[in-house]
Amino acid sequence: MLRHVIVVTSILAIALVAVLPGRGDDASHVRKAIQKVLDDQDGAWNKGDLEGFMAGYWKSDGLTFFSGGDVTRGWNATMERYKKRYQSEGKEMGKLTFSDLKIDVVGQESAVVRGRFKVVTSKETMQGLFTLIFKKTADGWKIIHDHTSSG
Amino acid sequence: MLRHVIVVTSILAIALVAVLPGRGDDASHVRKAIQKVLDDQDGAWNKGDLEGFMAGYWKSDGLTFFSGGDVTRGWNATMERYKKRYQSEGKEMGKLTFSDLKIDVVGQESAVVRGRFKVVTSKETMQGLFTLIFKKTADGWKIIHDHTSSG
Repeated sequence: MLRHVIVVTSILAIALVAVLPGRGDDASHVRKAIQKVLDDQDGAWNKGDLEGFMAGYWKSDGLTFFSGGDVTRGWNATMERYKKRYQSEGKEMGKLTFSDLKIDVVGQESAVVRGRFKVVTSKETMQGLFTLIFKKTADGWKIIHDHTSSG
Repeated sequence: MLRHVIVVTSILAIALVAVLPGRGDDASHVRKAIQKVLDDQDGAWNKGDLEGFMAGYWKSDGLTFFSGGDVTRGWNATMERYKKRYQSEGKEMGKLTFSDLKIDVVGQESAVVRGRFKVVTSKETMQGLFTLIFKKTADGWKIIHDHTSSG
């Protein structure tokens, strides 16, 4: 009988370990992966590489971008918005920095990032707040929703 | 031996059912719970009950409220901000409506809500966008982060 109890207990333990998410390690790993997406984004921006910056966003019509009172839907429209604001005549990308970043892993495939941005060009300084929703996609962690606002 | 196999299999099945998240049903149940928090919020607001409206927020110093370029931290400071904006001399709460709500359950204890708000008072109409992060707390589903912006 004792042998059976041990067998049952062992199988149960293995089943539980296989099924339960490994929260601690996963969260730290996810935070690093997301930090890298953000580092790659400001790195690309500061080289004038808008396409590289946009690689942090989910390349899908499902992407949403809230800015002030405006909703932009889809990766292509978001790219066009950035082009118009930072690469059209008389515009410049300037230097982008993120600060006060808080990365919270909220599920196996989701994370929330809060922070501040600042863009300094030769003519002006723009700054404000953002909330990003990240999702784990086949292509890695991507921003699926960006809410940004300025004072 | 067969009896033991059946016993082991049954215990395993029960353990797995207890541990695995019941995704489909849970998500629909969570969406309803969150919709109710939002309904209770605008219901309270439209009765001039700011305390009732604030019951939708996590009563914690950990609550964050982003509006334009400003960060408000904690439930008490958020309550003060609303009082100042909508209940101080010459101010009124008016009528609040939410629209274009999109509720996404992103984990066992987290959800993201995107939507529009409109506040109509006798003097003005204020409207804009919000992104809310909900978390399941001991007190039910609560907003732990609110990012709001206007055009």
